[in-house]
Amino acid sequence: MFLHMLNLLGVAVFAASGALSAGRKRFDLVGVVVLAVVTAVGGGTLRDLLLDRTPFWIRDTAYLWTALAAAAVTLAYVRFRRPPWSALLVADALGLALFSISGAQVAEQAGHTGLVVVVMGTLTGVAGGVVRDVLSAEVPLLFRPTETLYATAAVAGSLGYLALQGVGVERAAAGLAGMGLIAALRFAAIFWRLRLPHFQVPEDEGAGTPNSP
Amino acid sequence: MFLHMLNLLGVAVFAASGALSAGRKRFDLVGVVVLAVVTAVGGGTLRDLLLDRTPFWIRDTAYLWTALAAAAVTLAYVRFRRPPWSALLVADALGLALFSISGAQVAEQAGHTGLVVVVMGTLTGVAGGVVRDVLSAEVPLLFRPTETLYATAAVAGSLGYLALQGVGVERAAAGLAGMGLIAALRFAAIFWRLRLPHFQVPEDEGAGTPNSP
Amino acid sequence: MFLHMLNLLGVAVFAASGALSAGRKRFDLVGVVVLAVVTAVGGGTLRDLLLDRTPFWIRDTAYLWTALAAAAVTLAYVRFRRPPWSALLVADALGLALFSISGAQVAEQAGHTGLVVVVMGTLTGVAGGVVRDVLSAEVPLLFRPTETLYATAAVAGSLGYLALQGVGVERAAAGLAGMGLIAALRFAAIFWRLRLPHFQVPEDEGAGTPNSP
Repeated sequence: MFLHMLNLLGVAVFAASGALSAGRKRFDLVGVVVLAVVTAVGGGTLRDLLLDRTPFWIRDTAYLWTALAAAAVTLAYVRFRRPPWSALLVADALGLALFSISGAQVAEQAGHTGLVVVVMGTLTGVAGGVVRDVLSAEVPLLFRPTETLYATAAVAGSLGYLALQGVGVERAAAGLAGMGLIAALRFAAIFWRLRLPHFQVPEDEGAGTPNSP
Repeated sequence: MFLHMLNLLGVAVFAASGALSAGRKRFDLVGVVVLAVVTAVGGGTLRDLLLDRTPFWIRDTAYLWTALAAAAVTLAYVRFRRPPWSALLVADALGLALFSISGAQVAEQAGHTGLVVVVMGTLTGVAGGVVRDVLSAEVPLLFRPTETLYATAAVAGSLGYLALQGVGVERAAAGLAGMGLIAALRFAAIFWRLRLPHFQVPEDEGAGTPNSP
Repeated sequence: MFLHMLNLLGVAVFAASGALSAGRKRFDLVGVVVLAVVTAVGGGTLRDLLLDRTPFWIRDTAYLWTALAAAAVTLAYVRFRRPPWSALLVADALGLALFSISGAQVAEQAGHTGLVVVVMGTLTGVAGGVVRDVLSAEVPLLFRPTETLYATAAVAGSLGYLALQGVGVERAAAGLAGMGLIAALRFAAIFWRLRLPHFQVPEDEGAGTPNSP
C-alpha cells in the first residue's frame, strides 16, 4: 500500500518532468506523452527487469493512467501559465526521492544484501531521469557538473533508509526519512549550489592523443 | 505464422535503416552490421524483455540471418547506386508499422488490457529506431520537430487494431489495417509535412536559471 | 571459476575506464562512481537479461565491491599522477576481450547455436562501453571512425573461440586464445591505426532532404 502510493506519486512527478523536458525541445503532442510515460516508468521498469519481476505498469495499469493524467495536466497548465523552470528540478527531486526508496524497498523485500539494496535504490531513482535526458539528447542531469548531489542524494537516502532500520526504526518511517533526506539534499544543492569536489582529470596535451574526440 | 512473417519483414527493413544510418556516420563495415542488427532486433527485444519472453532472435536465428542479409544487401546496393534518402524514411515507416502491430499482438495474446496493448505496440514500434538514433548520436527521429506523426502513427495504428477487433474484424485483417494506417500516416507526414501542434514551452528569461544547459 | 575470474577482471577494467571517462567530463565524486559501476556491469547485465538469468552482480556482490574498489583506485591514482590517456583505451580493450568471451561462454553453456553465441559475445563485450559513452554524451567508441576494429575484434574473438573448440581445443584454452585475439586486434588498431574500409554513404545534395538533421 505504502509502496503503491510511492510509485504512483513518483510516476506522476516524473511524467510531469518528462513532459516539461519534451516541451523545451518542441516535441509534438504525442511525442510529449511518449517521453512523459517513458520517463515515468523507466526507473521502476529497470528495477523490475533486474529483479526479474513483471514491470509494475503491466501488472497495474493505474500507473499508466496516472502518467497520462500527469502529462495532460502539465500540458494544460503550461498552455495558460509560464512554467517556473525550477518546477522541473523540484519535480525531478521528488521523483528521485520516491523512486530511490521504492527501489531500495523492493530489493530489500526480495532478500538482497545492503549493497545491492543501495545500488538498486540508486539505479531506480536515477534511471527515469537519465532516460528522459538521453532521449532529449541532453547530458543527463545526473552528470551535469552544475547539478551535483544528484546520485549522491540517492545513495545517501538509501543508506539512511537502511541505517535507520538497523537501529530499530520501522520500515515506513525509515522510508519517509530516506525520502526526506534525498529531497533535502537535492533542494540544498539546487538553491545553495552545494557540490561535491569534481574529479577533474587533467587533459592530455600530446598531439597524437588516440582518444581525443 | 503471420506474426513470424511480420517480424521477419520488420527486422529486414529496420536492419536496412540501421545500415543506412551507420553509413551516414562513416562507421566501418562491422560497425555497420552491428548497428543494423541492434536496430533490427531492438524493438522486439524490449517487447520480449518487458513481457518476460525469451528474445525472439534467440529462439529463432532466422531473424539474425535476415538482419545480416538485409545489411549485406544494403551495403551492396549503396556501393553501386546513390541511395535515395527518402528510402531511409520509408524503411523506417514500414518497420514502425510492422513492429507496432506485432508488439500489440504479443501483448494481446498474453492477455493484457487495451492500454498495455497500445503502450507495448508503441514501444515495440519506436524502440528500434530510438536505439539506432541514440547510438548514432542523433536526436531520435521519433522526437525531431520536423518529423512528426511518428509516435502518433504507432498509437493510432495500435488503437485502430484494437477497435477493429472490437467491432468484429478478425485479427489478421485488423493487423493489416493497423499497419496500413501507421504507414499511411507516416507517409502523409513525410510527403505533405503534416504535423500535430507543437507543445512549445516558453523559454525562461531569468538570468539565474538553474536548469539552463 | 574461470568465468568468475574473467568477470571480476572485466568488471575492474571497465570500472576504471568508466571512472576515467567521467573524470574527463568533470562529474562529481559520486557521479564518477555511478558511471564506473554502470560501465562495469552494463555488458554482463544485458547478457543476463537477454538469457533470462539473474544479473551476475545481484547473485554475487563481489562484483560490485570490485567495481567500487577499481573506481577508488583510479580516483586515487589520478589524484597524484597524470593518467596516460592510452590507459583508457587499453583498459577498454581488455574489458572488451574479457566480456566478449564470457558472454560467448554463457550463451554456449545455455545451449545456443553458434550465431547466437557470437552475437551474445559481441553484445556483452561492447555494451558496457556503449553505455559509458552514451551516458557521457559522446559518440560510442564502438562507432567512432577513428577507432575501428572494435566490434570487429569482438566478432573475430568470438568466432575464433568457437572455431578452436570445433577443432578440439578445450574450452579454457580456446577462451584465452579468443581473448588474446580480441586484445591483439584492438592494440593493433590503436597503435598502427589499422582500420576496415568505411561504409561511406554519399550525402544527398537535394535541398528538400526530409531527413537532414
